[in-house]
Amino acid sequence: MPDTAAGITPLSLPPSILATAAPAIPTARGWAAVYRGEAGPAIDLTQAVPGYPPHPNLLARLGEEAARTANAGYGPIEGEEPLRAALAADLSRRYRDPLDAADVVITAGCNLAFVMTMMAIAGPGSAVLLPAPWYFNHHMALTMLGITTIPLPCRPEDGFVPDPERAAALMDGRVRALVLVTPNNPTGAVYPAETIAAFAALGRRRGIVLVLDETYRDFLPGNDPPHALFGDPAWRDGLVHLYSFSKSYCVPGHRVGAVVAGPAIRTQLLKVLDTLQICAPRASQAALAWAVPALIAWREGNRDVMAARAAAFQRALAAVPGWRIDALGGYFAYLRLPEGAPDALTMAERLGAEHGLMTLPGPFFGPGQERHLRVAFANADEATIAQVPARLG
Amino acid sequence: MPDTAAGITPLSLPPSILATAAPAIPTARGWAAVYRGEAGPAIDLTQAVPGYPPHPNLLARLGEEAARTANAGYGPIEGEEPLRAALAADLSRRYRDPLDAADVVITAGCNLAFVMTMMAIAGPGSAVLLPAPWYFNHHMALTMLGITTIPLPCRPEDGFVPDPERAAALMDGRVRALVLVTPNNPTGAVYPAETIAAFAALGRRRGIVLVLDETYRDFLPGNDPPHALFGDPAWRDGLVHLYSFSKSYCVPGHRVGAVVAGPAIRTQLLKVLDTLQICAPRASQAALAWAVPALIAWREGNRDVMAARAAAFQRALAAVPGWRIDALGGYFAYLRLPEGAPDALTMAERLGAEHGLMTLPGPFFGPGQERHLRVAFANADEATIAQVPARLG
Repeated sequence: MPDTAAGITPLSLPPSILATAAPAIPTARGWAAVYRGEAGPAIDLTQAVPGYPPHPNLLARLGEEAARTANAGYGPIEGEEPLRAALAADLSRRYRDPLDAADVVITAGCNLAFVMTMMAIAGPGSAVLLPAPWYFNHHMALTMLGITTIPLPCRPEDGFVPDPERAAALMDGRVRALVLVTPNNPTGAVYPAETIAAFAALGRRRGIVLVLDETYRDFLPGNDPPHALFGDPAWRDGLVHLYSFSKSYCVPGHRVGAVVAGPAIRTQLLKVLDTLQICAPRASQAALAWAVPALIAWREGNRDVMAARAAAFQRALAAVPGWRIDALGGYFAYLRLPEGAPDALTMAERLGAEHGLMTLPGPFFGPGQERHLRVAFANADEATIAQVPARLG
Repeated sequence: MPDTAAGITPLSLPPSILATAAPAIPTARGWAAVYRGEAGPAIDLTQAVPGYPPHPNLLARLGEEAARTANAGYGPIEGEEPLRAALAADLSRRYRDPLDAADVVITAGCNLAFVMTMMAIAGPGSAVLLPAPWYFNHHMALTMLGITTIPLPCRPEDGFVPDPERAAALMDGRVRALVLVTPNNPTGAVYPAETIAAFAALGRRRGIVLVLDETYRDFLPGNDPPHALFGDPAWRDGLVHLYSFSKSYCVPGHRVGAVVAGPAIRTQLLKVLDTLQICAPRASQAALAWAVPALIAWREGNRDVMAARAAAFQRALAAVPGWRIDALGGYFAYLRLPEGAPDALTMAERLGAEHGLMTLPGPFFGPGQERHLRVAFANADEATIAQVPARLG
């Protein structure tokens, strides 16, 4: 490559990043920047933020641990053993199948857990099957990693639950992972245990990893195990489970997540952890190791709070002609726009700019979503939710 | 891809991750697992860990900020404004050219800063020029991202300072970045300002980004600016500067680093930050925003401590026949093995297993390093350094 005569060659940035979408939430919040308050204070239902503070004892522990010299140093790549053991015990309790601390690695957040998992099991030039609509950061991660996203369209008439047979028909030789998020982001759909099992069986037959992101599992109704996959003695050969401490413990600013996987995948994953994060933030891990067993009842109480917000949101929407809730669960409702309304991008921009109601438009979550909005009702208390109909109407 | 008859297809993991080396430091520490203490307590000189605690006032601030509800929530993608402004002011002071908070983004550590930068400016299928020996995590990152590493061999007779003309001859159309680490990891070499300028000019002519990792810049002797690149009004079009708070403030367990870049690169980089980290740990950012201006004198004192350790290490090595320091600076010394000694891998394993001295062998840092060991003398106080000759001898 010769030096140019003028002495300067302009930069060219890689196609993988240029093809990646801009961050979604700042874009949607930007629409509300011109809102003048005509309809009352702005309501931000864009981001999946717990709408209540962390437990005060957890805050106190976070403070104590962060002030300790021991936590200022580097920690083990795979995470702090007490947190890994605590999460393994919590999973064993919740899923009713024994998991071990050795199965768990701790990450600096669940977004990073997803990216690192994709680097360990998929890699550039491969393809990954993603139910659509999808969590936008998953698609962004795949695009910037040079991994092809194969959309698996989910239908409103199925409650946005993906169909394993349709998935099987879409898979080609490039596919290295199937990704399921349940309770789902963006739709809120909760996938039945038998659907999850069918995807696991499909992955096993094809030699493809099933990646199960259960960030919102603590907000599932009831105490039945969300699925029975950990009961399969061979789960470690084909399943990766992702978890976030951000939602359950209201600490997204502390950046702690987890990956549960078997030894063959973990060996590769540890290379990625060493390279990307070295270790997850240590003080937060120490505090969370205390919180996981100590705050079980608190988490269950918050699950009830979220369920009440979901019910309040359903009641509120029933009062708005034309709008329909196509799916709901976890932190999210997925709304269908009224017939004859403008498309979702136009609608989301108008709601933000003219009515001070910030939501995310369906097209941020993949193809075929022009008639939907994602609403993170978890952010808002019931009094705020009660104001939503007037903003939509 | 048909389902297999037996119902199970074994997983195949991607070549990009299989080609990536195993984490270096646990491997080297593993060699010392069989050490029985014959030569005295084990001495770990593998990892670049500051060998003294954080300032007590910083620990107190870390504790206060971690206990605050406000820091438990999500923060801005680009980082907390007070820390960005504080780092910009610190850089302006140190480099004597004005930088702005807008030029700075905060990352969850400097390893992640490197990976995210590579995703923003290089991407799968491209190539990056890396002076050899290199920081192992840089090469691991490129390998797992599907980016080809082009080694730029550095010679002991040049003090391991890379040659821009040799770099120019190695560059082909795939190359999207030149990476320099100064003070260097692993050699400790401090690159002259004019060498850094020549690399910047080369990048500018070819439309290639110069990535300058200055993690160890607070340990440079004297107060002269390390280079004059920020004085070029066009620096924002082709330079990315990386920084770590881990070494300067002794807080690697808190995971905070930074990227300094112009708007074209930042626009792409923010997509990566949003996807990989969402935000860096918030409480630590808030505490560091206080520390950057408050601990200038403390940092300068630590620089003197490190310089004294470097001098102690030089004195200690002078007493060991056959061993030679080929380069030294920042946190590291790069040692040449005695003539006739076994290769570096064998030597490092023996030193760990038989003499309780943990170092990293040259081959961990790239091709052609079979006669060298990296020693992170920063980890050890002068009394410990004084024990090194007996272990080597």
